[in-house]
Amino acid sequence: MPVSLVGSIVNDRPNFMAVGWVTRVNRNPPYLGVGINKAHYTPAGIRKNGAFSVNFPPADLVAETDYCGVVSGKNTDKSTIFELFYGEMKTAPMIKKCPLCLECKLVDIHEMPSNVLFIGEIVAAYTEEKYLTNGQPDVKKMNLMILTMPDNNYWSIGDHVGKAFYTSSLSLCPRP
Amino acid sequence: MPVSLVGSIVNDRPNFMAVGWVTRVNRNPPYLGVGINKAHYTPAGIRKNGAFSVNFPPADLVAETDYCGVVSGKNTDKSTIFELFYGEMKTAPMIKKCPLCLECKLVDIHEMPSNVLFIGEIVAAYTEEKYLTNGQPDVKKMNLMILTMPDNNYWSIGDHVGKAFYTSSLSLCPRP
Repeated sequence: MPVSLVGSIVNDRPNFMAVGWVTRVNRNPPYLGVGINKAHYTPAGIRKNGAFSVNFPPADLVAETDYCGVVSGKNTDKSTIFELFYGEMKTAPMIKKCPLCLECKLVDIHEMPSNVLFIGEIVAAYTEEKYLTNGQPDVKKMNLMILTMPDNNYWSIGDHVGKAFYTSSLSLCPRP
Repeated sequence: MPVSLVGSIVNDRPNFMAVGWVTRVNRNPPYLGVGINKAHYTPAGIRKNGAFSVNFPPADLVAETDYCGVVSGKNTDKSTIFELFYGEMKTAPMIKKCPLCLECKLVDIHEMPSNVLFIGEIVAAYTEEKYLTNGQPDVKKMNLMILTMPDNNYWSIGDHVGKAFYTSSLSLCPRP
């Protein structure tokens, strides 16, 4: 799963939690879904403000990222760990050192037994020129991380395996 | 995003589509969500049978995987690409060569403008002893793939970056 930091304003303070349960869910408009346990501190902030951010940290922020997955905003102020910035919505705090930050407007909430799926429309995406190749986000330049559970490990992105949406015929490929 | 092949029975035939929009969404019971465009062939099969599988292919199946993301079951029989097996539900076809296969019972459907989020309870997970370390799935032994868009590339899992759910204090870590 991808490693992200979900940002929100909770009790008037920016807060970040590490989240691996995140995926695009709708193509048009561009929606993102994040599955968050109801016991966490973040849900109240997202519900109140109708906004959240999804920030993808580079591997050199692994300690800060993991810390945000271990300690709760209920008893720890996480607002000063990172240097922040804001987009048009003033209630989706984003992290300057993250090479990709998505600003999301809450559009739907799907309730489940232990978790809530917050569905947000991506209203803005922030990156820097140095992280792009041919005008597109370059995951290797961004040095993003992968999370596996239940072994609980972070990984970098590895070697290029192949082009996607490319194989229109299997007869062209050697079969195992 | 992770690379998966979602299996279903559509018009009485096993079918597989490549899906990157997949994530765990609920902890207990274990739910998985897959976001699929309504225009695809797969949704009718999942709705009819209330079942689907999520199979994670190894890098050596990159061509077959990509092919399943390019051609549609509407005009191509994809039932013979892989050797299949079934669990207790007879309508969630799974792929023998995939090191991790999750058999899902549809529990909820979340409709969105262009896509549907199918939420399934994982009723069984299939792997082999050789893919485990300390009794847990080992993503390196499985040799699973990552997908990036819109550059459309497949990647392997890279180097170990750190332990997760481990950092209870930032004062222990050198700050940048």
